Amino acid sequence: MEKEKIAVGVDLGGTSIKIGLVNQLGKIKKKISIDSLAADGPKRVVSQIIAGIYKLLDGQKIKIEGIGIGSPGIIITEKGIVADPPNFPGWKKVPLGKLIAEEFNKKVVVENDANAAAIGELIYGAGKKLNYFIMITLGTGVGGGIIINKKIYRGETGGAGEIGHSSIDYNGPLCKCGSKGCIETYIGNSYLVNNVKQQLPDHPHSLIAKMLQDPNTQLSPKLISDAASMNDEFALSIIENAGEKLGYGLASVINIFDITNVIIGGGVAGFGKPLFNAVEKAIKSRVMIPFKSRVKVIPAKLRNDAGIKGASALVFYKSS
Amino acid sequence: MEKEKIAVGVDLGGTSIKIGLVNQLGKIKKKISIDSLAADGPKRVVSQIIAGIYKLLDGQKIKIEGIGIGSPGIIITEKGIVADPPNFPGWKKVPLGKLIAEEFNKKVVVENDANAAAIGELIYGAGKKLNYFIMITLGTGVGGGIIINKKIYRGETGGAGEIGHSSIDYNGPLCKCGSKGCIETYIGNSYLVNNVKQQLPDHPHSLIAKMLQDPNTQLSPKLISDAASMNDEFALSIIENAGEKLGYGLASVINIFDITNVIIGGGVAGFGKPLFNAVEKAIKSRVMIPFKSRVKVIPAKLRNDAGIKGASALVFYKSS
Repeated sequence: MEKEKIAVGVDLGGTSIKIGLVNQLGKIKKKISIDSLAADGPKRVVSQIIAGIYKLLDGQKIKIEGIGIGSPGIIITEKGIVADPPNFPGWKKVPLGKLIAEEFNKKVVVENDANAAAIGELIYGAGKKLNYFIMITLGTGVGGGIIINKKIYRGETGGAGEIGHSSIDYNGPLCKCGSKGCIETYIGNSYLVNNVKQQLPDHPHSLIAKMLQDPNTQLSPKLISDAASMNDEFALSIIENAGEKLGYGLASVINIFDITNVIIGGGVAGFGKPLFNAVEKAIKSRVMIPFKSRVKVIPAKLRNDAGIKGASALVFYKSS
Repeated sequence: MEKEKIAVGVDLGGTSIKIGLVNQLGKIKKKISIDSLAADGPKRVVSQIIAGIYKLLDGQKIKIEGIGIGSPGIIITEKGIVADPPNFPGWKKVPLGKLIAEEFNKKVVVENDANAAAIGELIYGAGKKLNYFIMITLGTGVGGGIIINKKIYRGETGGAGEIGHSSIDYNGPLCKCGSKGCIETYIGNSYLVNNVKQQLPDHPHSLIAKMLQDPNTQLSPKLISDAASMNDEFALSIIENAGEKLGYGLASVINIFDITNVIIGGGVAGFGKPLFNAVEKAIKSRVMIPFKSRVKVIPAKLRNDAGIKGASALVFYKSS
């Protein structure tokens, strides 16, 4: 067997920083989670990351190949600069890559978290054998990453891949980005939960309604998923509707990119078959004929700790 | 001055084949047009192209650099194969590049006509100084070509760039591709003309209505443009509406590609300022904040004979 190689993966979030030691097969050897303390400003966040990495490496007798960081915001990858990540007050532009590299004297790769998720699937996961694929990460937002000939596509300024803000209805629901009818307004976590809330009065006998009678139970994507797995028709209709809208949006993306493999991950991907079937059916009903038979909608392989794994994959990924 | 270099450009259409001698600055030295005789099948079309090139070169004492062909359909560029061009009966897959190269013993480059239009702007036109741009060609259909770092983006099978079949309303008008609400259903020639027809009874005093009282006058994009240039409010509203819809679609494309220069050419681009202003305004109203200030909507520079010029540019374009 090839000698084991180890990278550090840092999954930077607005609430917590998750850090892990991951080998070249995508296996996590050790992981920790610390507060990001984002409200205290960028200096504090950077020292949290540094402290976290020291804590992780403490007592480990290994040589690490490098440190990968998946971050929200627009990333200037060549310089490792993180610009204006949402939910990080006072941030502007921070040379995160340089600051971490100076501390640890290691190769540091910083990448947008949605792109890191795509690279994670490319290196360890469902995209290992694919040359071209579209990665969708479903969560609070809807992240996108595009792999072209085994490379991440970054666009002119590193901001490419915002598939969640592709609109399927120019008169649709208002999106927090300022546009209308973005894919995110149909399948982002908070919009999904709001849809259920709005329709709940029409479904008083649904399992979701019954589950919510418990005052300790919160309406969440997880609860919708649980109800659907028990065949609750209302929950299934919510999931199918969201999947259909995502599929309509992806049909346009496929027509433009001529890329027909779609990998879907993130929390809401836990909806499983009802979601994946609805997405695939909607894409096939709308995509141009030459692409139709090639369309494949594939569940992401990295699930738990996908953020840590995707970040660590940046170290093993050759970007040029 | 650099020595003049000359290429042959072949603009293959369903009705006619236009062929020209073009120098490396995009200047046409000589051009001819012949029938494509598409109804007689692919062999006949190929011999028309060959006869046309001989006719063009007859009596010319020049060495040509190569032959570029812009064709409808999906092109397998490495092999010069043209697959299933619409309006070419009995075609399937034809190794057009090989057949022409064998006849003339020259370098032959075959490319999709929308991509050739983008390469034409890149080599000779409005895209000469740009590294990244989106090219839109407005006509019967709405063609798209995407230039990434001075290269055309072809996708996995050479079918990329179908921006005209990006949908802006999943419940919108039925498109001939089978989807709904495609950009083409708002700004393709026949849809534009149909829109005017439908709304004409509500605008009996418009200039368009007056012009159509002449029984020899046909409703066409040109007529709409002529009326608009005389400040006909109905004509202007038709153009602004179509431009707005194109802009909504482009906003999504920009969010995904992080490419903010848009070059628009083709017949309907002759609508001029009212169209371009509407497109830019709509894009800016919908695109994500980091892209907003960078958005530029630029008229194509190649107008007359853009097809011949784009095809000839393929010879001067280094594709790898």
